[in-house]
Amino acid sequence: MQNRTYTADAEPGDTVTVAGWVHEVRDLGGIAFLILRDKTGKIQIKFEKDEMDEELVETGLGVHRESVISVTGEVKEEPRAPTDVEVVPESIEVLAEADTELPLDPSGKVDAELSTRLDNRTLDLRKEEVKAVFEIRAEILRSVRNAFRELGCTEINTPKIVATGTEGGTELFPITYFGEEAFMNQSPQLFKQLMIGSGLERVFEVGPIFRAEEHNTPRHLNEATSIDFESAFFDHTEAMDACEYVVKAAYEGVAENCQQQLEALGFADDFEVPEGEFPRLTYEEAIERINATGELDEQLVWGDDLPTEGERALGEDVGEHYFITDWPSEIKPFYIKDHDDDEQLSTGFDMMHPRMELVSGGQREHRYERLVEGFEQQGLDPESFDYYTKMFKYGMPPHAGWGLGGERLVMTMLGLDNIREAVLFPRDRQRLSP
Amino acid sequence: MQNRTYTADAEPGDTVTVAGWVHEVRDLGGIAFLILRDKTGKIQIKFEKDEMDEELVETGLGVHRESVISVTGEVKEEPRAPTDVEVVPESIEVLAEADTELPLDPSGKVDAELSTRLDNRTLDLRKEEVKAVFEIRAEILRSVRNAFRELGCTEINTPKIVATGTEGGTELFPITYFGEEAFMNQSPQLFKQLMIGSGLERVFEVGPIFRAEEHNTPRHLNEATSIDFESAFFDHTEAMDACEYVVKAAYEGVAENCQQQLEALGFADDFEVPEGEFPRLTYEEAIERINATGELDEQLVWGDDLPTEGERALGEDVGEHYFITDWPSEIKPFYIKDHDDDEQLSTGFDMMHPRMELVSGGQREHRYERLVEGFEQQGLDPESFDYYTKMFKYGMPPHAGWGLGGERLVMTMLGLDNIREAVLFPRDRQRLSP
Repeated sequence: MQNRTYTADAEPGDTVTVAGWVHEVRDLGGIAFLILRDKTGKIQIKFEKDEMDEELVETGLGVHRESVISVTGEVKEEPRAPTDVEVVPESIEVLAEADTELPLDPSGKVDAELSTRLDNRTLDLRKEEVKAVFEIRAEILRSVRNAFRELGCTEINTPKIVATGTEGGTELFPITYFGEEAFMNQSPQLFKQLMIGSGLERVFEVGPIFRAEEHNTPRHLNEATSIDFESAFFDHTEAMDACEYVVKAAYEGVAENCQQQLEALGFADDFEVPEGEFPRLTYEEAIERINATGELDEQLVWGDDLPTEGERALGEDVGEHYFITDWPSEIKPFYIKDHDDDEQLSTGFDMMHPRMELVSGGQREHRYERLVEGFEQQGLDPESFDYYTKMFKYGMPPHAGWGLGGERLVMTMLGLDNIREAVLFPRDRQRLSP
Repeated sequence: MQNRTYTADAEPGDTVTVAGWVHEVRDLGGIAFLILRDKTGKIQIKFEKDEMDEELVETGLGVHRESVISVTGEVKEEPRAPTDVEVVPESIEVLAEADTELPLDPSGKVDAELSTRLDNRTLDLRKEEVKAVFEIRAEILRSVRNAFRELGCTEINTPKIVATGTEGGTELFPITYFGEEAFMNQSPQLFKQLMIGSGLERVFEVGPIFRAEEHNTPRHLNEATSIDFESAFFDHTEAMDACEYVVKAAYEGVAENCQQQLEALGFADDFEVPEGEFPRLTYEEAIERINATGELDEQLVWGDDLPTEGERALGEDVGEHYFITDWPSEIKPFYIKDHDDDEQLSTGFDMMHPRMELVSGGQREHRYERLVEGFEQQGLDPESFDYYTKMFKYGMPPHAGWGLGGERLVMTMLGLDNIREAVLFPRDRQRLSP
């Protein structure tokens, strides 16, 4: 439609063609209103029955809610209209008539279960506050990529079909690949590291990852968006600096470019961009602070992984994004480097939102012999990771990086209850369609 | 390395720490040079043996090629050095010693087969002209996303694990998904269309697609990057306009921001950004012109698909990007709308580079009954696509869109012989690793 005008751009005096969905029809007798909705907003179409062509009135008032129509007419000022203007229709075309029975009410007046919403995402995303989540999600990805470029990264795309998993394990979806067994990749970890030894030096990737975990929680997905960073010549502290930079950039982008969407989600002026440095707690400090909250039935001791309730208690205590550093080596993956002066201590770190973990990272083991030992200690056959390890023999610089859960970033930024609200078509144990 | 200086930024008079790969060592007797390479370029490190600490000289000249080192020293002007400056080392640290035998020569002096290069991408990407391809690829993706935003699109991410393929067919990789059969998605087609009926109206996605085609050609991949566009209230001509805009933006971005990379690839001033409108040939004109070239053994007749040699002959004849429109309906997918005034003619279009097809698109069938009929005619069970078709009953606007092969765009823009040169880790029938 070459000559279409968005409702937000309709100026009094113009003759326009607006197109969109029939949001509502209010028939007051001699006068009636049709509210037309498009991606930019809503506009009132006025019908003065006695003064208008009968067929035009019939078409306009007879069309079912959520049908798609286009309306040509003059825009007039009308202080009583929600946007101070209205269109007096000269012609109406019904482009797609909607059924009278809708599986979901896009006006939002009738609440729907999450599963009904996910089954009917098309209708669900007609709601302003749902649409806002995905417009913000797009802005987050834009800001994040932009921040990576400012940090001197090259964007990469690594394969999603792989012969071996990053950490082996059983949490892989198997594929049949021309008669061979293959897997859907659970992380770009090994591939992004391979690029560190190349001339690119510093890379990022935003792409899907696949985990066959049998979790069924509001913060796990079986297909998720991973935001990955890796840099040559970085140690874990520099990787943390980069992490802070990128996460702040995401908040800043949303604050700058998504004011309307934030308002639709109920943020008035209380959308907070994180300021100052994220506190960096050691693992040891973290378990002490968790123990001090008294929230756990049993005190944590050195070597324990942090239970979900522990993370939550600590998050409430800290009250902002923070890092946990210096984890016991034994609970971090083998490809994370240990501290040179204390092999019990890992350079691995997590970056936490008060509600949950967002990022996992660290300096990587770049020494060939140590890396191969790590595979063996993990019970993995280094031979099957040969394509990866052998590149460490040909000049692999020290490097560090991290992976950030894209949906968790959206979820925590916007205070969503369930991570599925941050994905158009989530995948979990029960949900494979749409 | 907080205090690292890139070689390109080393200014005479500065004391710097540069870090990178040992590109070359030239020992001339009393004097010797080590060329250090990093992502920004190369720098000469000078050793005057008699005037320097013996251990320093031994370290610098004894280290194997492609090892990773850092060098601290003063930058001096030296007109005879390749970059007019050199570093007089005060200390050298060997960060990762490389094996003496390399599976691939990153200096490029020794040619390598594509398969050796793909097995050793880390080393392969130390070559300037290979690195340049992937830096340009990243710029293409940046420019393309930016162009989509200028067109008012929202970025979406649709699932890669799906219950049914876009067009059914056997060209799907099967997955085991928690005991159920699922597939890796061959196209975001159905999902992006679902978003057209939502409040987003106009969307784009850049993401992986998976096709189990048994092709083995220099222009097919089994895992590729699809650049997808879809807009409500667009017809096929408007979709073609958008396509032209996005492809030109990719060329413009590269011309503006990748001069150094283009030079590394041998483009002097002859990198051409497409100008003017891409010619739009009807299918009928296309077969006439192909027949007129006399390149085919047998004349094409209405209804034939265009054979590869036909595309090539026509591409040479046209000599620039062009569209082929108005295809016979029977050789376009069922979800493409036919012309209202001639059901034998499809609104489908292809956008071609003289070497090959880049884009496939069209206006979509948005009428529920017709769409369901299309599934049936295709031999597909409409029931299993219910999640998709039912949304067409609730107000689905007319819409159009297209999919652009990301690697084909890179390949044709840069004149690469094989599409595998445009992917870090290509997947084909023979290649599943790395």
